[in-house]
Amino acid sequence: MEITDVESIRFTYQSHRTRDEKGHSHPAPPREATGQLTRIAVDGGPDGYCVGGSPAANRVAKRYLVGSNPLHREQLWSDLYRSQRLHAGTLYTKAIAAIDCALYDVAGKAADLPVYELLGGSPDPVPVYASTMVGDDDPDGLGTVDAYIDFCEDLVAEGYGAIKLHSWMPPFDANPDRVVRLCRAVREAVGPEIDLMLDSHHYYSRSEAKRIGDALGELDFRWFEEPMDEYSMSAYTWLADQVDVPILGPETAEGKHRIRAEWAKRDVVDLGRVGVFDVGGITPARKTAAVYEAFAMECEPHGNSIPELHHTCAMPTVASYFEWGLLHPKYDYEERSYPYLTDFPTPADGVIAPPSGPGLGYEFDWDMIEGNRVE
Amino acid sequence: MEITDVESIRFTYQSHRTRDEKGHSHPAPPREATGQLTRIAVDGGPDGYCVGGSPAANRVAKRYLVGSNPLHREQLWSDLYRSQRLHAGTLYTKAIAAIDCALYDVAGKAADLPVYELLGGSPDPVPVYASTMVGDDDPDGLGTVDAYIDFCEDLVAEGYGAIKLHSWMPPFDANPDRVVRLCRAVREAVGPEIDLMLDSHHYYSRSEAKRIGDALGELDFRWFEEPMDEYSMSAYTWLADQVDVPILGPETAEGKHRIRAEWAKRDVVDLGRVGVFDVGGITPARKTAAVYEAFAMECEPHGNSIPELHHTCAMPTVASYFEWGLLHPKYDYEERSYPYLTDFPTPADGVIAPPSGPGLGYEFDWDMIEGNRVE
Repeated sequence: MEITDVESIRFTYQSHRTRDEKGHSHPAPPREATGQLTRIAVDGGPDGYCVGGSPAANRVAKRYLVGSNPLHREQLWSDLYRSQRLHAGTLYTKAIAAIDCALYDVAGKAADLPVYELLGGSPDPVPVYASTMVGDDDPDGLGTVDAYIDFCEDLVAEGYGAIKLHSWMPPFDANPDRVVRLCRAVREAVGPEIDLMLDSHHYYSRSEAKRIGDALGELDFRWFEEPMDEYSMSAYTWLADQVDVPILGPETAEGKHRIRAEWAKRDVVDLGRVGVFDVGGITPARKTAAVYEAFAMECEPHGNSIPELHHTCAMPTVASYFEWGLLHPKYDYEERSYPYLTDFPTPADGVIAPPSGPGLGYEFDWDMIEGNRVE
Repeated sequence: MEITDVESIRFTYQSHRTRDEKGHSHPAPPREATGQLTRIAVDGGPDGYCVGGSPAANRVAKRYLVGSNPLHREQLWSDLYRSQRLHAGTLYTKAIAAIDCALYDVAGKAADLPVYELLGGSPDPVPVYASTMVGDDDPDGLGTVDAYIDFCEDLVAEGYGAIKLHSWMPPFDANPDRVVRLCRAVREAVGPEIDLMLDSHHYYSRSEAKRIGDALGELDFRWFEEPMDEYSMSAYTWLADQVDVPILGPETAEGKHRIRAEWAKRDVVDLGRVGVFDVGGITPARKTAAVYEAFAMECEPHGNSIPELHHTCAMPTVASYFEWGLLHPKYDYEERSYPYLTDFPTPADGVIAPPSGPGLGYEFDWDMIEGNRVE
């Protein structure tokens, strides 16, 4: 089995979302957007695919991967990882992640096993939390406390047992007192039985984060996520020491399993975090989860991708929740989020199970993709 | 796929080794010994085998495993691990390891991949060190400094680039000064190009270990292994701080990946150690290796089993050496050590490669095993 190409398949599709000036997603009128798949072409074995990746990164990666056996993931991942230093900005971590996931797709198909099972995991359904989009200024969207209350009540009525609020972030008003008002109002609306989490802003000061964290402890929130810049372990150590609500992280900090091991070593926060696309693929996500488990530390997965779901089902300690969304009252997530897939796992009764097909189990709509290819 | 039995296959064979009163192996005239395989019987899939295990442990394990899918190793391993607390002494760690390895044999066969490749590893040959048996009192064996010199010169002539001495352990004279004399004489005999390691006694005092360690630093030994009781992290922290030679461990300490993570967290020693049978199988060995790699710490595998070789070839950082032996001038290791296998990996030119067959790739001599079955 030999890799012959690392291809980028780009295509246009109708998007119903847009990004604000800071990069957060919100619902929007239909517009043409460009999607991307990464394809590992294999001679003598199945091709592997992953949604995402980068054409520039794949061009660089090709120089390292072509001619190698796609099953030798440890070596291939290590080659890509070490090449990041010389290709900073091009061979970025999320792009490596897409390649690593596509290699897992190859391996699962070659073994005729879904990736979660290749990894020794089980298909037991995982509870999900409804993860809201970042708030906006739309009074019928997520622009006010009342709008959030309406939406959260709808989510509970739909069967979600847990909700994560993204409250507001710049350019919208992210004043800590407003966020506390929101959290208090949502807790009152949904009652004590629903698990609530807050993921807010990412750049609060220590004092602002403490002000919010104190309230979340009182309101029995399950966790408080990324309120501050994750490059200061000291700030997180300080915060976790000051407040009762469990602090979760790191999510986006660069440094893969290594920086997460340093956080775990120092007991910086209460709950660990792993995201396949944050750490560079399933290969380093496995290592990250192993580190947390070795320190008997809970580890919560980040993001709602199919590779993430496989990894979650194979974690040594099954996560308390899989993230589902980002959801918004004016955005039909199940209808709109995967226009290039004919089928994908969706939650029912508050839980989600991984796809059962070999590899990552993507069901691509090839007619749609091929009919809309762009170079 | 469903587990229907966890069977113990016991058989007699001609052994050419015996154990001294402390449990260390030495060459001996032929005698009848009992060997053991663990078999995971699977309905709707391939059976899995591992050399070793325990009938009593397998009887207990059967209650937890029968009816489960053998591919769901994380859950099965976790069930066995948590059951150890209630079945202490019966469901011991090496017995769980044999079951976990047999489950990997099932998975590799089901996927038609050798286990190292199921894990994402490569078949690149790994350098080996010749690991000597523990010394004895035979002047033509390993009973004197001169006898050790002769043997080490033979090993170098056979192509080994590295040798690990087990010097002497009780009931033989393990006086630290005698051990230092041995190490000095062997270094002089083999010259500076051969890598040398020492693994000695396991119960020296701090001062004795320091006396030996100081000499090993001078003699440019590659590592000093398990000179003291591994349940005192403090003693190892003290020793590693006192001597120049790198200290390696822990090898036999109970606590699997968790206790190894605690050693790594505290930088107790310089070099990490992982043994598939020491930590409870390939499942926890993967986690142990991930922890070491996350802290950019070297990790050296322990033991020469076939599962160990697969794991070594799939480690995130390839080990500097695979252990080969235990060797003795009066014991033909390749001829005698696997009487129940028709073929197994052996080193050539100082390196060893994993078997290429699916699963663990054991080549059992079923005629021999079946012809000598015992209950």
